[in-house]
Amino acid sequence: MTTREPLVTATELNAHLRKLFGQDMLGLTSDMVTEMEYGMVLTTMEVGEKQLRPGRIISGPTVFAACDAALFYACLSVYGLDMMMLTSDMQIRFLRPAKGTRLHARGRILSVGSKLITGQVVAFTDDESKPVAVAQGSCVPPKKPVES
Amino acid sequence: MTTREPLVTATELNAHLRKLFGQDMLGLTSDMVTEMEYGMVLTTMEVGEKQLRPGRIISGPTVFAACDAALFYACLSVYGLDMMMLTSDMQIRFLRPAKGTRLHARGRILSVGSKLITGQVVAFTDDESKPVAVAQGSCVPPKKPVES
Amino acid sequence: MTTREPLVTATELNAHLRKLFGQDMLGLTSDMVTEMEYGMVLTTMEVGEKQLRPGRIISGPTVFAACDAALFYACLSVYGLDMMMLTSDMQIRFLRPAKGTRLHARGRILSVGSKLITGQVVAFTDDESKPVAVAQGSCVPPKKPVES
Amino acid sequence: MTTREPLVTATELNAHLRKLFGQDMLGLTSDMVTEMEYGMVLTTMEVGEKQLRPGRIISGPTVFAACDAALFYACLSVYGLDMMMLTSDMQIRFLRPAKGTRLHARGRILSVGSKLITGQVVAFTDDESKPVAVAQGSCVPPKKPVES
Repeated sequence: MTTREPLVTATELNAHLRKLFGQDMLGLTSDMVTEMEYGMVLTTMEVGEKQLRPGRIISGPTVFAACDAALFYACLSVYGLDMMMLTSDMQIRFLRPAKGTRLHARGRILSVGSKLITGQVVAFTDDESKPVAVAQGSCVPPKKPVES
Repeated sequence: MTTREPLVTATELNAHLRKLFGQDMLGLTSDMVTEMEYGMVLTTMEVGEKQLRPGRIISGPTVFAACDAALFYACLSVYGLDMMMLTSDMQIRFLRPAKGTRLHARGRILSVGSKLITGQVVAFTDDESKPVAVAQGSCVPPKKPVES
Repeated sequence: MTTREPLVTATELNAHLRKLFGQDMLGLTSDMVTEMEYGMVLTTMEVGEKQLRPGRIISGPTVFAACDAALFYACLSVYGLDMMMLTSDMQIRFLRPAKGTRLHARGRILSVGSKLITGQVVAFTDDESKPVAVAQGSCVPPKKPVES
Repeated sequence: MTTREPLVTATELNAHLRKLFGQDMLGLTSDMVTEMEYGMVLTTMEVGEKQLRPGRIISGPTVFAACDAALFYACLSVYGLDMMMLTSDMQIRFLRPAKGTRLHARGRILSVGSKLITGQVVAFTDDESKPVAVAQGSCVPPKKPVES
């Protein structure tokens, strides 16, 4: 997108999430926003044993949860901190077995409208160029108009 | 689909899931297959406190997990019990706030191929005619050819 | 949805489409709205030779065009005739070869909001129970709020 | 993907498409493969008057057709020229009005399996950094196994 500052910082968002969900955020051991720009977010999540499937593959719903969070936070970066933002839809494609216990998701905003903010996410474990999943989706911002 | 018998029954599948995941299946309190036909599955899940968001709305990733499971189990109903079945992709659309703590997902198979089994899911709490989400996706069966 | 009257009728919509696009609507020989209720539309399209692929299969983009139109018209049925309605996204899954030259698409609305109207479509040639494709998507209504 | 050579070149593919569809390929004035690498394709299409909507916006189904073709051709670049490749599904998100009459679509392959080849597409008119649409989807290769 642009070189504007994000409308909420990683520090602010992490603090807010910790307050809302405690340490055990989203049922996962952690879900930290590690990078945040206007229209771009990187999250890093330590995956617990319960999220692993046979073969020690991170479960599909866990990867979805990471993608959903990354899209949501990326939307907040262009809109401001408002937990009434709603995911309207998301399509996820699983590309490779998610081996490992550290899961990253990078969300990028593609367009910003008053009714819909749209973006894509890449989920990866050790190598961002070999994603375990890609996703694209939209969020509906709460009320106030947003300029593109 | 047809009036054929499912290639795995609800009783067999529930027993298998309990063995794999214990009582705390998928990180949820329960995730039971309550109906199973050839090409159709209904799951019922008691949602725990951790899966609730402000306003006591069931979280999006929890609804996704229910849809993903329902599609997966519906694929098993036309293929047989084989946990190497893989979800290749899923698109979920959130339609209404998921109020309540009992979440149902009904999965239906639309087409069966040797490379891809495709279906749709309707997720609902108290009223199936007012779904909280719909989803459509595909699974890749492990190896053996399946006739349509 | 409900038993309300559609906010635009098949006759009105067909007349409007003919005025906009002439006989050769959407680059196809015809694309008629054959049924219209509040939240439900059926379209029927005679497919021309150019839309056929080897094996006389109706091309994927032609099936998409039919699904896109059916979702759009179904949105108009709950909103009123306004061509500024915009499709925001659509996911289409191709299930079977589309044999034949008459293509039907039935669109149904699943939820109506002021920012997003969401629905599903089933495309079929001779047998609605064996669809050639299913699709789900959303439209963004122009301006005025719509109650659900 | 890699630095391998594409398994079909732009010249070969364009010649094949011209033979199959003539000058009026896909019902459009032209649809040329302008770049082709292993796992990457760029198509450029001159859009005719019939594909324009009020406001001289390129119609949604036309943008879909371009994305579908770009994904299909990108799949051929990693598989070889075989028109029995089938699109199994595609999700398209419309981001901005498609102003102009020259439409480009860049398809990139994300994963290659024996049962499914998956990729993403960016469609744009004058500025690739402001896409008019993004899409992601899969194709099912005809028969022979493909190594990833």
